[in-house]
This record gives sequence, structure tokens and C-alpha cells, in this order.
Amino acid sequence: MLTAKTSSTDVGQALLYPKSIALVGASDDAKKTGGRPQLFLRRSGFQGKVYPINPRRTEVQGEKAWPSLSSLPEVPEHVFVLSPTDTVVPTVQECAKLGVKLVTILASGFSESGPEGVERENQLRAIAQESGIRILGPSSLGVVNPNNGLMLTANAAFAEPDVPKGKVFVASHSGSMIGALVSRGKARGVGFAGLVSVGSEVDLSVGEICAATLDDPAIEGYVLFLESLRHGDQLQAFAREAAKRGKSVIAYKLGRSSAAAEMAATHTGALAGEDDIADAFLKDLGIARVEMLETLFEIFPLAQKIPAQTKVAQRVAVVTTTGGGAAMVVDQLGVRGITVQPPSAETIAKLQAADIPGNAGRVLDLTLAGTKYEVMMKALDILLNAPEFDMVIAVVGSSARFNPDLAVKPIMDSAGHSKPLVTMLVPDAPQALAQLTQADIPCFRTPESCADAIASVFSRRQLSVPAIVKGHATTATRALSEAQAYDLLDTLQVPHAPAATFDLQTLQPGALPFDFPVVAKVCSEHIPHKTEVGGVVLSIRSQEELAAAFATLRNNLQERAPGVPCDQVLVQPMRKGLTEVLVGYRIDPDAGPIIMLAAGGIWAEVMRDRSIRLAPVSVETAQEMIGEVKMLQTVAGLRGKAKGDLNALAQTISNLSQLALRTDLNVTEAEVNPLMVMPEGEGVLAVDALVMQPL
Amino acid sequence: MLTAKTSSTDVGQALLYPKSIALVGASDDAKKTGGRPQLFLRRSGFQGKVYPINPRRTEVQGEKAWPSLSSLPEVPEHVFVLSPTDTVVPTVQECAKLGVKLVTILASGFSESGPEGVERENQLRAIAQESGIRILGPSSLGVVNPNNGLMLTANAAFAEPDVPKGKVFVASHSGSMIGALVSRGKARGVGFAGLVSVGSEVDLSVGEICAATLDDPAIEGYVLFLESLRHGDQLQAFAREAAKRGKSVIAYKLGRSSAAAEMAATHTGALAGEDDIADAFLKDLGIARVEMLETLFEIFPLAQKIPAQTKVAQRVAVVTTTGGGAAMVVDQLGVRGITVQPPSAETIAKLQAADIPGNAGRVLDLTLAGTKYEVMMKALDILLNAPEFDMVIAVVGSSARFNPDLAVKPIMDSAGHSKPLVTMLVPDAPQALAQLTQADIPCFRTPESCADAIASVFSRRQLSVPAIVKGHATTATRALSEAQAYDLLDTLQVPHAPAATFDLQTLQPGALPFDFPVVAKVCSEHIPHKTEVGGVVLSIRSQEELAAAFATLRNNLQERAPGVPCDQVLVQPMRKGLTEVLVGYRIDPDAGPIIMLAAGGIWAEVMRDRSIRLAPVSVETAQEMIGEVKMLQTVAGLRGKAKGDLNALAQTISNLSQLALRTDLNVTEAEVNPLMVMPEGEGVLAVDALVMQPL
Repeated sequence: MLTAKTSSTDVGQALLYPKSIALVGASDDAKKTGGRPQLFLRRSGFQGKVYPINPRRTEVQGEKAWPSLSSLPEVPEHVFVLSPTDTVVPTVQECAKLGVKLVTILASGFSESGPEGVERENQLRAIAQESGIRILGPSSLGVVNPNNGLMLTANAAFAEPDVPKGKVFVASHSGSMIGALVSRGKARGVGFAGLVSVGSEVDLSVGEICAATLDDPAIEGYVLFLESLRHGDQLQAFAREAAKRGKSVIAYKLGRSSAAAEMAATHTGALAGEDDIADAFLKDLGIARVEMLETLFEIFPLAQKIPAQTKVAQRVAVVTTTGGGAAMVVDQLGVRGITVQPPSAETIAKLQAADIPGNAGRVLDLTLAGTKYEVMMKALDILLNAPEFDMVIAVVGSSARFNPDLAVKPIMDSAGHSKPLVTMLVPDAPQALAQLTQADIPCFRTPESCADAIASVFSRRQLSVPAIVKGHATTATRALSEAQAYDLLDTLQVPHAPAATFDLQTLQPGALPFDFPVVAKVCSEHIPHKTEVGGVVLSIRSQEELAAAFATLRNNLQERAPGVPCDQVLVQPMRKGLTEVLVGYRIDPDAGPIIMLAAGGIWAEVMRDRSIRLAPVSVETAQEMIGEVKMLQTVAGLRGKAKGDLNALAQTISNLSQLALRTDLNVTEAEVNPLMVMPEGEGVLAVDALVMQPL
Repeated sequence: MLTAKTSSTDVGQALLYPKSIALVGASDDAKKTGGRPQLFLRRSGFQGKVYPINPRRTEVQGEKAWPSLSSLPEVPEHVFVLSPTDTVVPTVQECAKLGVKLVTILASGFSESGPEGVERENQLRAIAQESGIRILGPSSLGVVNPNNGLMLTANAAFAEPDVPKGKVFVASHSGSMIGALVSRGKARGVGFAGLVSVGSEVDLSVGEICAATLDDPAIEGYVLFLESLRHGDQLQAFAREAAKRGKSVIAYKLGRSSAAAEMAATHTGALAGEDDIADAFLKDLGIARVEMLETLFEIFPLAQKIPAQTKVAQRVAVVTTTGGGAAMVVDQLGVRGITVQPPSAETIAKLQAADIPGNAGRVLDLTLAGTKYEVMMKALDILLNAPEFDMVIAVVGSSARFNPDLAVKPIMDSAGHSKPLVTMLVPDAPQALAQLTQADIPCFRTPESCADAIASVFSRRQLSVPAIVKGHATTATRALSEAQAYDLLDTLQVPHAPAATFDLQTLQPGALPFDFPVVAKVCSEHIPHKTEVGGVVLSIRSQEELAAAFATLRNNLQERAPGVPCDQVLVQPMRKGLTEVLVGYRIDPDAGPIIMLAAGGIWAEVMRDRSIRLAPVSVETAQEMIGEVKMLQTVAGLRGKAKGDLNALAQTISNLSQLALRTDLNVTEAEVNPLMVMPEGEGVLAVDALVMQPL
């Protein structure tokens, strides 16, 4: 029995470089799932020890078979359990007893399949916790390391012998996808330094698996194929370390559409998180989330050249030999919010002095006449040295296919420049693409993947939040009353409308510290949704109406919430802003503390017009968020309309987000809704708030 | 000199099957632009006559050269002018004199380059009009017909000898793109029956060029590469005929982003139209607009199987051998608004009875265990016959690459079914793709192009509008006064708020036929934008205030619009709806009569929340439009909110759109803004309108 949890370094070693492997349930039939790993390992010439375990045979696929793990001459470093679901728990138990460091489980039939499965999964988790053994899976198709022939996988795709070696490590929720990624990478000249089917992450999560490989010099970057966002704390810890080491992390995440999000949930037994929270999480972690599958194989050289930033300059120049081809790239960038810039007057003068043909519009079009080595070379030199550009894109037409010396070679010869030089080839030009790829020059086969890669690299932000404090997100919660919530807002310096509280039984409420009209609301921690019980009376214009309102509230409570404790009424002046927004803080179970700004009222629901960040955020980041909520353009000074106090709004968002640091306040959720945005200089004003604390 | 305009049939003949060609300005240097067509034609073995014209040489590229067009032994059917810009007009003049049917112009330097160019272009147009000769270009890189070796092009990409023969005809605004399209088509197993670089469409437009080839049995479908929408009437006429013949039309149009739209405008001298108008135009014409370049080479088999419809059922089933791979397709469809449906209980029972493995979620996942010919065959049979589905998508995992017999062959063997069966291959599987492509089975290399193709095919609508009446769109216009505009709305049965008109000089206006509060507005055909001159007074509550308002209006006019004729004041009751929209009719210079519904006020600008169709529209189509304007969800009965009278809105949209048929009313533009949407059963109410007529 292990005495301590296998260290991350040991996991990395046992995962990708095991000296000995046992295959529990190895089949003599190499075509069967249980027979594949042995076949593949032998075919690829893996040099470590491989022990087939099969109690019913003395030989498996022509090799000596062992009856059990305990009969082996050594403790294997990595055990792959290929046997059926019901044998998994005892096998893992045996592994733990023997001191195996890492066990990978192929079988499914755990928490995704009913109460028995949940029980099995709990047993696995208990074994891992007690013994320190680490578990990969269940539902893992295994691990592949092309660099040492470790084809420890039941994925039939690896029947193909030569898996391309390279620098990219893949961790995938989907086991079948790792085969597809290899073949697509191969077609595009991209190789791999490891591929792991992570399965359902009962123990080792994507983040932990990647973290375990961080010191592997063979790995220069990471591709994550994610069905949903899970174990965010571990993913964050990994991303932090990857950023320190300058290793890019790229993610393809399913779940943009609700149908796919729901599928991922059904498939893994996890809850479907909201995609835009996951999106903000990945970007805040400096992870480039791509939209297209093919971008995964093209983005790395670009991602490695551009560091993640909180505010990235996005000044892009385009030079081309084909106007139509360049226009596609400009268009695709434009729909992703990146506007290609025309050269400055000074740069245009330099181009003219150098006799570069082509009119200086938004794109420098050399045309057919300028499709020459010297012309492209000189044009690239001028654009790469122009201070107004952060990136130059060269879009090459048909010459890339039949005469790469004309316009592709100058790109290769300009690649040493510190500024990123990106290439998109308009024809089908596999040889030029392969050359560029081999030279680590960012190059793209389609205008869409080109724009996708640039947009996703630009959208990465520098990780600026503290590590997620795990714990109270999943615990049961209770609401504060509105009056208590305002006390919290006072602490956080979030402005709210003045409020006076009265005893609910008051027959003749006294004078108010503010003018009519006012609103009266029941105030109780047991009634978080006041309107649902008729707990709000609006537009009260006098003391008499106020007294009547109290009576109405008493009646409504008696009828619609009998027995629910409620002692107080909260009275507030009616306030109306130029517009209203929702500002919400919460500890998301996957992403950790997040802050959200959304358009107010029914708009938020219909348009999903909102911006999300990991909390806490600075005032500057809050201003970025304001820029992302389209509705707020209506109060940003458009066409002479009144301007809202967006500075106060930014300050307020930042202030509320500090809850992520104020663990002493013990808040899991705080939603200010609505927050009235008053005219410029007049601030913002919360007129309702819901705060949740752990029970 | 020709006596009549060359017929469309003759254009088609001279374009793709000329018996004789003259190359004016043929160069002896085959590497030069002017030398390429001759080289390419000879290399490809073109059987027609080819006459190089070069007054300075007796031989060009080893063949007899002719000094001039008039020295030729016959009148060539098609003349390609390769000589410089300043020689173009006299050459075309000579062509016309000789009776040449079609002349293609390579040179640029026309309306896109200053007043001299505009003059040259006018001369070309005049020659064409007088003589009947048809002109392709200027800025045309020429014409290619792979079926007869007609490589009549200066595009260097055609140096490559074997252009794949096939069924697709390409018309492209960009000349350089036709080379790229050929190489990409080749890589994907798609061949061509003709490619035309249409240039700047001084005479022959994309629509006319395609129309001229409609009776060519070699052509089964069309790809349009459009920089902008121009000559919509001719495009519409072509689309109408193509639909009758069952020939699909696919378009890739630039200009989704404003930067690219502006580029296209600069490039061609055309005005940049609004992309969503072009989008509505293409869809209403039954043209499938794709978003991705690669979709162009994959969409045809699918487009041919699904007819354009006004209301398309979009019930899609997915069967797969890879859950992760299928989820990508489901996700990509979902973001495009197509939700994959789970099978019905009856279908699930059939699957179970047939012993098909896999849990019946949204996607039928056969898993690794079910990756077998018989299982996939049976699953396809059951799904294709299930009445709840209109389309079945099979997503095949790694087996497609190394063992296509398992899951690809059953797809090929099921292709005879009347219901569309679509395939997406998750690994890189070029051989299986080629087989499927050759068998005309819709198959896709990426989840994105798969979803793009399905979405764009589903988005085609049946052409239901009359042919565009060309003419008065570009003529100068004048506005009607608001009172006159209401008369027009009455004629069209578009409800508006009651209105009373008074003489502007009235000092004591008499009693009103409606209650206070009212609004008073200056009423003059010379003041289309009333608020800009202080011409509106709101919230008038009494006769005294009304008299004061008249005085204010008189003052404001004197100060801010002195001398502008204005005799009337229009008074209306103040009306407030649940929400307000803009309904606009206009004759777009490119698309013809269109009808637009947009969210009201500042929202329309910020969110571009609008829906457009060609006019006129039925009430049913108007209802579809209402469904596309997101803001209107707020009055569609969401979460117990009040419902607006959307039936009345649909009727009103349809009524206003009838202007397209009422040529007697002579209206070029009619914008009802705002149109108040009242609660359900209470109708809609125009409270302002701007109508433009030709001068």
C-alpha cells in the first residue's frame, strides 16, 4: 500500500514514460478491445516491460500471460484495466495494495449509469483517497506517447502504425477524438508528444493530468478537447504554471449550443454549465479557445509568438497577391471584431519609395504584377517595421501552389522578425503549407481558421485572479433579507437607494426620511422572491397609502405565504435610472468566483446580453465588461442621447467583485438587480439585492 | 456590325464553346500575362481556331500571328483583349464593326480609376448598346471550360495542366479566386463545367453570364463568388430559371463585416450595399449562401437533394460511432439554430427490437461496440424510415480512415433512400471522402462545413415575388408630407393614429376630434426630418397649450428653417404601445423592392435587430419576420409579460409590402417609424411615416 498520494511528477512519469505496464484482462484476440493495447505496444516497439494478465490463459498473443497482478515479478508502474465494469473495483483495490502508482480504467458504467454505478465510483474515490493511488478514467481509452512508442490504448485508430511525433500534448474528454486528432494532425504536419483520454475524471482531472507533464521538455503546448468545464480549480492551477513556462494552452470546448451542452451532461453525469461562463473562465486563464476543429492544428506557432494580455493591441496589416483572397480574411476577421488597418501615410510613402505596386487601401494588394520575391520581401520588411502594426498577415494566391518561390519564400525569409507574421494560402497548396508548418511559421489553410486562430489568441487575457478557494460553492445556502443585503453592499461600497425598515404589524407608519412616491416590500430572509407572494407595493404617494400598503402586504403574506416568518417591511423611494443593469457575483461550482454584468430586465433573458469575468476585477476590466454589453451603448453617448454614469458603474462592478477576496464575508452569491444607472455624474443605485450565504 | 444584341444562347456558345478565338495583344513570351492564354489553350489541346493578333510580329509562340482583327480569314466568335487599357476602346469598336459576338477585356483602369476611366467605361457601354456586341469585363481574367480545353485565361494558376472536369459552373467577381477554387475543388474531388472571371460587369453581369449557360446539359449547378450584390434584377431572372431546371445555386458573398464591404466597393467602384439586404435577397431567390470557403466544394449533393422551401422542416437525426465527434456536429448545428432531435418512442422501440446498441439520447451513439456494417445499416434504415425525421446525419469516427467497410459502406449502401443522408467523417479520411463524393453522397470533412452546408440549404426560400421592375430606384426623389403619407397608409390599410391638420398660422386652433394629451408637428413635404428643425411639440394637455405649441412651431421654423415652405400643422393624440417597431419598404438599387421590420428606436441601431425580405410578403412570411426580430420576443408572451398584437403587425407588414405591386402609387420608399404595437387585440398604430416618390 502506498503511504502517500502519488506525486504529480510520478504521475507524469507513469503516464507517459512507464518502465512497466500491466494489462489486466488482456485478450488473446488482438481485434478485440481488450487485445488492442498489447498489439499496439508491440507494433510500436515500446521498450518498457509489458505484462499481460489473464487468469484463464498461459499465453496471450504469443507472450507469457500472468494470472494476477500479485504474481508479477515487480510492481508495475502503470496498470491498464481492460476487464469488465464489475471487476474494476477489486482490481483497483489490488493495485493500491501492491503500491501501483497509476491505474487506468477502460470500462464505463459508473456515475453516468444509475445508483450502482455511483456506488462503484464512490468506492474508487475512497480507494484513491486512502491509498494515494491515482486513477485515470473510468471510460478512458488510454494513453499514447509517440516519442517512446507507448501505445497504451484501446482506441482502434492506433492500429495505424506511425503516429506523428511532435511537441503537442492532448488531453481529451472524448476518447474517440484522440484518434481523429492524430490523423488530422498528421495530414497537417502536426505531431504529438502525448495524448490522453481522460474519461470521466473520477480522480485525475484534465488539469492535473496536464500539470503532471509540465516539466516534460518534449511538450511545448497543450490541446484540450473539453466536453464541459469541470474541476476548474485544477485547470486554473495548470494554466497558471503553463503560462509561467511559456507553454500555450489551446481549448476546443463543446457546448456553445444548449443541445450539445445537454449531451455532454448526459454523457458524463456532470451538470451542464453555462457556456459563456466557461468561455470567460478559459480566456481569463490565458487559454485560447478556438471555434473550429481545424484551428487546433494551425494555431500553435501563432499562440507561441503572442503572449496573453489583458489589453491586446489588435492592429493588423494585410499584404496580398490576390484581392479576393485577402478580402475573405478581412471579412472573417471583421465578423470576429478585428478590423484590418490601412498603413499610415509614412508607411505608404515608404512603400511608394520602394516602388511597391498596388494601391494603398485597407489591404496592400501587390496584384499579379507584384507577385515577385523582391516585391513581397520588401513589402513585408516595410510592414513588419511599421510602428502602427502589431501583426502582418500575408495572403498568397495561386502562386503558392505552383511557384512558392514568388511569394511564400519571402515569408519564410522574413520569419525572423519579432512581430508575428501570419500566412494564409488561398489555393490548395499542401507543399507550401507543409514547409511553412515545418518552419514554425503561423500558416492557415482557410480564411476561417486563420481568423479563428487570430481572434482566439487575441482574446486570451492575463491571469490576474487569485487561485480558486474550493469548498463552499456546493454547500447548501440561505438568503439574507433585503435589509441585511444592503448592509453587505454598504461594506462593499456598492451604492443603494436609501431604505427605512418598519415592523410589519405597524398600523400607522411614521414619517419617512425621504419623499414620496415610495415602494414598500416585505423584508425577510425566508422570502427571497418577494413579487411571487405579492410582497411589493409600488407608487405609494402618501402616509395613508403607506398604511394601506402595509395592510395589503400583511394580507398577501397570510394568503400566499402562510407561516413563513416575516417581521419587517422595507420602504424605499422610487428611483428611475437612464437604464438598469444586473450585476451579479457568485461562486460558480466549475469556474470559481465570477462577476457578471447583464442588460436589465427582460432584455437580459431575450438577448443574453452579458459579460462575465473571473472575480475580482479591476475598474479597468469592469470598463471592458461595460463595453461588451451592447445595451449599454444606449447610454454611452450615442447620437446625442443622455450618457449614463458608466464610471460609477465600473467602480461598482469592481467593488462587488471584491467578494472573491473577502472570504470573511462568507458570501456565495450576491445579485444586485436592478442597479439603476443614473445620468453621468449622478452614480448608480441598487434598488434590490439578493445575497446568499452558506447555511 | 451586328444588327441586334447577341442572344443569351449565342453568348453561352461564344463563352464556353467558341469555334474561333482571337487573342489581341498576344505576347511571344508565354510567361507574360499576355502570353498565357495561348500557351494554356495549346497545352490543353483546345480544338477551336486560335488567332494570335500582334502587329509587331509575324509569329507568336511559334504560330503565325495576324496584324489585326480585320486581317483574319473569319470573324472570330470570341475575342480576348490582352492589350493595355488605352487600346481597349478602339479594339472593342473594331470587334463590334466586324460582328464579333463576345469580347473579353483583361485590362483594368475603368470606372474604378478616376474620371478618364469612367469615360472609357461609358464608351464601352455605348458600343455594346449600339452594336449588340457583348462585353465580359473589364478586369476579367478570362474563361475556362475544362470539358473542351478552353483555357482562355491569363490566370497563372492554369499553368497547371489538368483542371478537373465536372458539373459545377463558377462565376466570380474575383479573377484570382477561380484558380484557387479549381485547386481546392481538385483536392476535394469536385470538378467544373466552366469558370468565368466576370470582372467589373460593364456589360455582362453574373446573372446574365450564368443565364447564358442554363441550357448547357454539362452544367448541373452554380457557384457564385460575389464581392457585392450588383445587377440584382439579372441575378433574380437567372435564379428563377435555375430553380425551374433544378440546378442549385450556391453563393459565397464577401461583406459580412463593414471593412470587407468597403473593400469590395473600392475595388469595383460599386457602392457597398448592406449585407443583410443581400443576404435576404439571396435566400429569397433560393440561393444557398455559405459562410465558409470549403463548404462550396461539399454542398452540392445536399443542395440537389433538398428543394428550396418557404418553410422547411428541420428535423434532423444523428447516428454516430463517436460521441465526441457527433457532439461537434450537434453543437455547430445548434449555434446555427438547428436542433438535433431525439428519436420518437416508436423509433427507439424499433432500434431496441433490432438489437441496436447505444442509449437513445439526442444522438444514437452506436459506440465502438456497434461499429459494424450490419448495425450501422440497420440503424440507418430505421432512422431514414422514421416519420419524425427529414434528414439523417451519420457521424463516423476513426473507422472511416482505416476500415471504411464498417460504417462508411453502409452509408453508401443506404444512399438510395429518398430522405437526405448526410455524412461527416471525424478523422482525416481522404479515401472514404473521395468515395462518398464520387457517389454524390453529401459528405463533409469538418463539423463546421457540415453545419454550414445544412444551415444554408435550409435557409433557402421559394422565390415568391414578381420580377424586379427596374428603373426608378436610382432617380431623384421627393418626400410627401406626413398628412399625405397617412393618405397612402390609408390606401394600403396600414393603421395610423388619428390626425387633424390646421393652418400653421392659426392662432386659436379649434376643438380636436380626440382627447388631450396631443402632439403637434409641422407638416410639409419639404421637412422630412421634423425634429431637426424643432418641428415637434409633445405632451400638449389643453387648448391653451396647443395654441402656444403652434407659436413655438412658427418660431422654430423661422429660426431653423427660414424660407422652407410649410403651411400645415398636424395634431395627433399621444399613443403609447407595448413596444415600437420600424416597418420600412423601399426599392433597393441592388435587390429591388424590399420590406424590413426592425426593433424600434435606438435599439435598431445598436443591435441591428431586424428582418428583411423581398417585397411583397404574405402574412405568413411577415410572421416569420416577426420571429426573427429578437426584441419582439418581449411582447410575445414571455414569462407572463403582456402580449402585443403580433397578428395585426404581420398583417400591416404584408399590407405595406404590397407597394411592390402598386406601381400606380409610384413610391420608392415608405418608412413607418414608429409603429406602435398595442396589446393583443388592439392592433398596431403608425404615429409617423416618411414616404418618398420619384421627382
